[in-house]
Order: sequence, then structure tokens, then C-alpha cells
Amino acid sequence: MTTCAPELLSLFVAYGTTHESPDVERAVMDGLARFFAARPGEADSADDLGRRFADSHMPSGATVEAYLRYLFDDVVPHSVPVHSPHFMGHMTSALPSFVAPLGRIMTALNQNVVKLETSNAFTFYERQALAILHRLVYGRDQAFYDAHIQHTESTLGMLASGGTLANLAALWCARNVRLGPKGDFAGVRVEGMTEALRAYGCQRAVIVASSAAHYSLDKAVDLLGLGRSALVKVPTTHGGSIDLALLEEALAQCEREGSLVLALVGVAGTTETGAVDPLSPMADLAEAHHCYFHVDAAWGGPVLFSEKHRGLLDGIARADSVTIDGHKQLYAPMGIGTVLFRDPETARAIETNASYIVRGGSPDLGRRTLEGSRPAMAIYLHGALHIIGRNGYRSLVEEGISKAAFLARTIESRPELELLAEPQLNIVVYRFIPKALRERVQARSLDRDGNDSINELNQRLQEAQRDGGASFISRTTLRGTRYGADVPVVVLRAVLANPLTSRDDILAMLDEQIALGDCLAG
Amino acid sequence: MTTCAPELLSLFVAYGTTHESPDVERAVMDGLARFFAARPGEADSADDLGRRFADSHMPSGATVEAYLRYLFDDVVPHSVPVHSPHFMGHMTSALPSFVAPLGRIMTALNQNVVKLETSNAFTFYERQALAILHRLVYGRDQAFYDAHIQHTESTLGMLASGGTLANLAALWCARNVRLGPKGDFAGVRVEGMTEALRAYGCQRAVIVASSAAHYSLDKAVDLLGLGRSALVKVPTTHGGSIDLALLEEALAQCEREGSLVLALVGVAGTTETGAVDPLSPMADLAEAHHCYFHVDAAWGGPVLFSEKHRGLLDGIARADSVTIDGHKQLYAPMGIGTVLFRDPETARAIETNASYIVRGGSPDLGRRTLEGSRPAMAIYLHGALHIIGRNGYRSLVEEGISKAAFLARTIESRPELELLAEPQLNIVVYRFIPKALRERVQARSLDRDGNDSINELNQRLQEAQRDGGASFISRTTLRGTRYGADVPVVVLRAVLANPLTSRDDILAMLDEQIALGDCLAG
Repeated sequence: MTTCAPELLSLFVAYGTTHESPDVERAVMDGLARFFAARPGEADSADDLGRRFADSHMPSGATVEAYLRYLFDDVVPHSVPVHSPHFMGHMTSALPSFVAPLGRIMTALNQNVVKLETSNAFTFYERQALAILHRLVYGRDQAFYDAHIQHTESTLGMLASGGTLANLAALWCARNVRLGPKGDFAGVRVEGMTEALRAYGCQRAVIVASSAAHYSLDKAVDLLGLGRSALVKVPTTHGGSIDLALLEEALAQCEREGSLVLALVGVAGTTETGAVDPLSPMADLAEAHHCYFHVDAAWGGPVLFSEKHRGLLDGIARADSVTIDGHKQLYAPMGIGTVLFRDPETARAIETNASYIVRGGSPDLGRRTLEGSRPAMAIYLHGALHIIGRNGYRSLVEEGISKAAFLARTIESRPELELLAEPQLNIVVYRFIPKALRERVQARSLDRDGNDSINELNQRLQEAQRDGGASFISRTTLRGTRYGADVPVVVLRAVLANPLTSRDDILAMLDEQIALGDCLAG
Repeated sequence: MTTCAPELLSLFVAYGTTHESPDVERAVMDGLARFFAARPGEADSADDLGRRFADSHMPSGATVEAYLRYLFDDVVPHSVPVHSPHFMGHMTSALPSFVAPLGRIMTALNQNVVKLETSNAFTFYERQALAILHRLVYGRDQAFYDAHIQHTESTLGMLASGGTLANLAALWCARNVRLGPKGDFAGVRVEGMTEALRAYGCQRAVIVASSAAHYSLDKAVDLLGLGRSALVKVPTTHGGSIDLALLEEALAQCEREGSLVLALVGVAGTTETGAVDPLSPMADLAEAHHCYFHVDAAWGGPVLFSEKHRGLLDGIARADSVTIDGHKQLYAPMGIGTVLFRDPETARAIETNASYIVRGGSPDLGRRTLEGSRPAMAIYLHGALHIIGRNGYRSLVEEGISKAAFLARTIESRPELELLAEPQLNIVVYRFIPKALRERVQARSLDRDGNDSINELNQRLQEAQRDGGASFISRTTLRGTRYGADVPVVVLRAVLANPLTSRDDILAMLDEQIALGDCLAG
């Protein structure tokens, strides 16, 4: 009778015990302490890093201690301090410290929330967290929540591994609802896109959003069999939100050419500039054109916590579905997207059953999720909603918006810098202008060559700052700024979501950029 | 100048420090210890649990300590001991204890592997882990791995949050490769399904797999715009693997009716019975019919670690892509699917770029993944491959298969039980036969009524054992057993993947079932 070797078995036996080995514990804590205390150094080159991870042979085995030494010596020091108050370039932030104990619990329990049998309480716990977010967005009455929060046939929302999947799940619902059964036609879910277009008598089916919408929409129309050309991208105003007049024109054009608009997608907080689309007029248009209305509030959703700013998102409660990311402004770790549905029946359109796992009529969450087996990531969401709470989130959101305004005003006061759009939320886009061109920029007489040279300079500036390692601002290329729809403008992009970033940090980061810019401009 | 309240800020400041508060640490360890030491009690009813999580109001905030008390008092005790050696019903197991420190590191660093700028070393580290698995499956030569392991334009594999997404990503590639650009047609990716069928001159496009394939394929054909009717399900042999003669017939039928076969999917370890499809003859058929060949080895892939058993998967290296789950027989926590590609160019077919996040030509992993922002879950995969290693996995796999054979032989030796299929891997399906019907079962003269009553009895037996809480075996309903293609057979399903499950545990579980069966049969 063979059994596994004792050392191997002991790895598994130890899993259920109370304490990790003190050596392991110490190695982890010391290793993390070294990382968090390290002064940022120069960034590694991709080639150097590639060479470190070039062996593809199956390892023969190692002790936990040896592997941790390897991790902390060879991998962790070459990761990115995304928590740093000086790294203002990404939608990642320092996290609240309670994510560590919650993560410990999640991994130890290793529940699989695809079905009740492997999650039990965590099924209902996840539904509760989603209902709390649903209430934040839709604010239905108590009777509504009493009826639906734990009703097996109701889906107030679903968790996904990120915003991309949340948007995809929403648009999957949109397509299946809009192209549902009709007469002899069993619905797009059963018969596919070609039969659906035939049954609905249209040339093609499209999804309409602004050109600033997230690239997950490009993936979604590809995946859903519509094709990337079926994503109608409407230009934005200079501020980065959808141009309503052009949107009306695009919708009319779709009608003229026999294209069925499956969904209109509004963005509440674009990735590039944090702009919010005018959701209320968009809801009117969606209603008028009988299309599904989805709002991608992956970034901006938590603004709803602030009485002061929530008006920016007016109309969001009229959306058929809303995406909000947990790992962005809900301050949970990576891996949490949510999509909320106004109508608890919507997600029926994507239901799948299987006798061995997700049985029809059961409380199994996997009946109506894009993913199958999933961890109980809801622990981060439920935990953060309860610990940070309403007041904590309000304060985090308001502080970020206030810091962005501070940065915008500072930029305006510096002749070396140009603000490209007034921030609506907590993302600021701007660029460095070399001395020789400042007058022309101020006089609005910059020509294309001048703009190109500023683009090139800002790219080098951003890379130099990144490679220096002391602070980080991201960059992107905007179109549709005041310079015109076809003029690419390379901008520096600051995201002010980290509560540890102070106004002094912001000033120091700008000083560094101006010094770098002056130096690079020669 | 507003700033966040000090208590709120302190949550974030503490994130970067070396040690959690000792109170929090103790609360977590004591809470987990109570859970792991608890004697299983009766299972809670879904209604009772629903009532515990019925409040949807936004919480006002809480201390970490108070939230942990709530978790350990009200949630954790009502979760499922999936790690227990007596829970042999699921594809979850006890985990190696090193997942705790690795999880701690992953959450603390909170890298986002969508792009280099927020992950750096972890981009290359993830590619390395995938290359090791690629080598396990495809075993290409050293020059191949030297050329591709870290080459920006090569994709040996991708990580996904689970097997469902891994299969979806593979079939997304299959569809886009098979319906790629042709003459004036820009490819299904750009123009969608309807134009694709027109360009390729076919009535419909289908995917072919056995009726025992995972339900993620039903989701995939729906999502991809093919429709669920486009999943051609070929019956299985009594053993649960695809019937090759019927498969040939199905492929010929597709040809006759002008259906384009986008992909043939083989299963290496079905969810229900662990059966392995004959991959080598399937590869021949895929070749003959010019279709993409995907193998879903989410469960069975790690059998490749065993020289003794890997012959079962002969032909897998001819697949265009292979799914292997990390959270199944690689013993990583929930949330890790992988898909590996024979041709490093395949995933080009699903590439998406965006100037603000995943730039064309960059090493950014997000260019060719289904998901966008993602955590560095590769830490569990890379860690387990290195710590458990080749010999550890071989031993785990062989031990599971050996225990399944032990269970099968024991079942055969007990007149109260009927084995429904000889296990190929480590999953065993069987049922309890009440005394009154044993002779008829042995004489193969059971009629439909008799079978129905056995089904009903086994359902009650499984539920009674589950509700008792001491041990757990899952159940499913098979069709295509020796009782005929249309006869549903409710079976008990044991999964022998937990290295802590001993042969004595298996015998005790069977004794409990026989006692329950006798009692329920009256």
C-alpha cells in the first residue's frame, strides 16, 4: 500500500494547524519588511528580468524556507511598490492592513462559491455584499431587498475576477436579453448570432460607447461574436465624456442602416482621465432606442458614497447594469469586479445548469456567473464595506477628488505645465511644455510639429522618471483634446487614490518632473 | 485642507509595516484553529443561512477586531470543511500549508500583472511557471523554450481565474484562428459571426465534444455567438469517454450538412467520472477535419507527472491548447486556471491593445488574456511547482489513483454497492442497492421502476450523509451507463485527491453509507 512520503504529507497536515512554523512566519515578515522599507532603486530592464526567469525545467522539489529565500532575494525586490505614496500613476493604492488577515482566512478555508455544497454560508455572505452595493447604486426600497437579497431566483449582482469580466457578463446579458426568444427563434443563447440577426431582421448588432470607454468593450464585442467593428465609438468632448450630440447622431445612423443597438454603455470615470459620461441623458436615449443601458463605473462607482459628489453620477440608477471594481476605489486587493443588475431577473438570460455542480433552482451562485469555481473573494468586499464603512469611503473619495483639484490648480500655476482637462474625479492629465514653446501653447498657436516634439519630450520624461524609481506617473495618448480630434497628445496621468499620498508628495513629484523636463529639453 | 480621519489613515499606514497587530494575529489563528478542530455538526439549512445575511444597509464602519469576531462567530462555523479527509465528494482537498505565506506575500505586494509597469518581475515569473507546465504537456526541445519562454511575441500559456475561463480563452482562440481573415474578410474578430459564416460559405459553425464534457463549453458556445445548439455532444462509452465511432459519425454529419467544425474538444478527466477521452485518435480526427483540437485537462493534466499513468493521456501533445487547473490537482488555492498553447503564435488571434495600459509590442501580459487587471496568482503555481516538485506531484497523483482502485475493489466486494464504471483516474462512481433489488442488479434484469427507486434512494442517502455532517460524497446523474443511453442513474461520486484521506477513512465512509442505505430502504 503506497502512501506519500512523510515530508510531503506533513505539508498538508500542517495546513489545518493553528500556526505556521515560526521560521516561515519570520521569513515572510522580515522579507516584506525589507521590501516596504527599501529605497526605490533604478528599474530593471525587461531583458535582465527575462533572463532571470528563463529556466523551464520541472523543479524536483524544495523546502518552503528555500523557496521563500528565493522569492525575497530574486523576485520581490524586482516587483513594483504600487502601495507607495510616490507612485501616483496607477489605479492601485496602499491597501488597508486588514486585507492580510482576511486573505489568511480565505485561503485557509478555500471555499468554492460556485455552489452551496462547497461554500455554504459564503454563498449568502457574497449575496449580502452585492446587495449592499446594489442599494448604494439603485437605492430600491426595503421590500425590494427583503424580497430579493437571498431569493434563489433573484440576482442582484455577481462577482467576477475583475472589471473586464464584469463588463463582459453585463454585455452577455444585454445581448441575450435583447436577442431573446421570439416566435420560432429560441434566442441567441441557443441559436447563435447569425440566426439572431435573421430572426430580428437586422443587418448587424452593435454596442455604442464613447471612444474613451475601456478596452474591455473591444474584447467583449469580439468574444460575443459581434466583431470589433460592432463597437461604435462616439467621440468625446474635450473633457473626455461622451459627446451627446454625436451620440444622438450615431444612434440615428444605426437606425438608418438597420443596425440593432444591443446596448449603450456609459462610463463613470474613464480610465484615462476619470471623466464621467452624462448618464441621465444617456438613459433617456437608451429608453428611446429600446436598448440595454450599461454603466461601467469600475473606477467611479464609489463616488456614490459622497453626498457632495454623487450628483456627477446622476442617472446611474436607470442603468440595467453597473460595473464597480472592488480592487480600485473599494480598496480591496486585485481580483474583484462586480456587476449589479437593476432587474433581479436579467441574469436569467445567461443561466447554465449541470447536474453534477449547479442544479437548476438551487442557491448555487455558479448558475449565473461567467466563471465557474471561484474563491470567496467576497471576504474582501464584505469586510471592507463593514470595516471602512460609509463614512470611511466618503472620506477616501472626497479626499482623492480634493487632491486632484489641488494638483490641477498647482499645474495651472506653473508655466512649465499644461493641464489638458479639468478633473471631474481624481485623475489629472497634463504635460510638460519646454520653455521654447510655452508662449505658443499659451497663445493657442502650437503647430503640429511643435506638438509632436512636446509628445516626444513627455514620453522621455515619463520614462526617465519611471526608470529613476523614486516616483511614478503613468502616461497615455489622448485624442480629442482642445488640439483637435486627430491630434495625438501624450500626457502625464496622475491618479490620486492613495490616502497616503500627501500634498507635499504631489509637489515633490511635480518638481522632479519639471527638473527632468528642463534637463531633457536641453 | 481636508484629510482622512487618523483612524482611517492608520489602516493604510499599517499595511506597509512588518507585523499585524498581535490581537488581530491571535484572533485569526485562534479562529482558524477552532474551525479546523471543530467536530462537524449538522449542516445548516439554506433558509436559516439566508436569514443571517439579510441586511443590505450600508454599514457605518467597524473595527477590524469586531469584524473578525463576527466572521469567526457567524460565518466561518457555517462554511464547509473542504479540507477534511472525510469530505471526498469534491475536487477540493487539504492544501499544502505554504499557501498561507505565499498568499500573505501576494496580497501585501498587490501586483497587477496586466502590465509590466505594475508587476515587473512577476510578469516574467508568471511566464516561467506557464513554460514549466508547457514543457510538462508538450515537451518541446530546449531551443524552443530558449526562444519563447520570455519572448514578448510568444504566448506559451495564460493564466485565468479558473478552468471555465481557460476553456473559454482556448475556444476564443480556436474560433478566431479558424475564422480568420480571408480575402476581403477581416476575420471574425473584426466582423463578427454572421459575416464569418458568409465569408467561409457555411451554414453554421460548431464545436464537438463528448456529452460528459464540462458545462463551461455550454457557456463558451453561448458567449462566442455560436449558440448552445452549436455544441455537438457525442455520447460516451459506458466508461464515460467519448465514443470514437459516434464521433466519426458526428464529424461526417457536420460535413454533410455544411457545418464548419471550429474545434474538437477532448477531455482528460471528466468532472463526473474522471474518464479520459482517447486523445490520440481524436488528434487524428481533428487533423483529418482541419479543426482546432483543445484538451480540457483541468482535472487530469497532472497525471502527466506519473510515468506509470501518463500513457492515459497519449496524444495530448498534439492538442492546439490544453487547460490545466491550478486549484485542482496542482493543489493551489481556488482561482487558478491555465491554458497552454502548442503554437506560441495562437494567442495573437485574441490580442487587444490600449495606449493607456497594454501597448502593442510590450511584454504586458494583458495584451493576450481574457481578463484585464489580475493578481499575481502565479505565486501559488510557481511556488507549488517548485516546492512540491516533480516527485511530490508524481506521488500525489499515483496515490490518488491507487486509492480509487482500492475503493473500486472494495465496492465490488460489497453486495450492497454497485460500481458504475471502472475508474481511470481518482474518481469513483457507484450506488447503494437495497437488499430487495440486489439479485436483479446482479442478474442484469433491473427494470425501469426498480432503477427509479434506486435513484430516489441514493439521492436521499447522499443528502442524509451530507446533512449528518461527518463525511461527504457528492452525487450526480449519469446517462449512458450499462443501463442504456436514456436511463438516468443517480450515483454517489467519490473524489480521492486529498492526501490526508486514508484507506480507513474510505472504509468508514462506505460503512456509514451502507448503514444509512439499509436504514432508508427500511
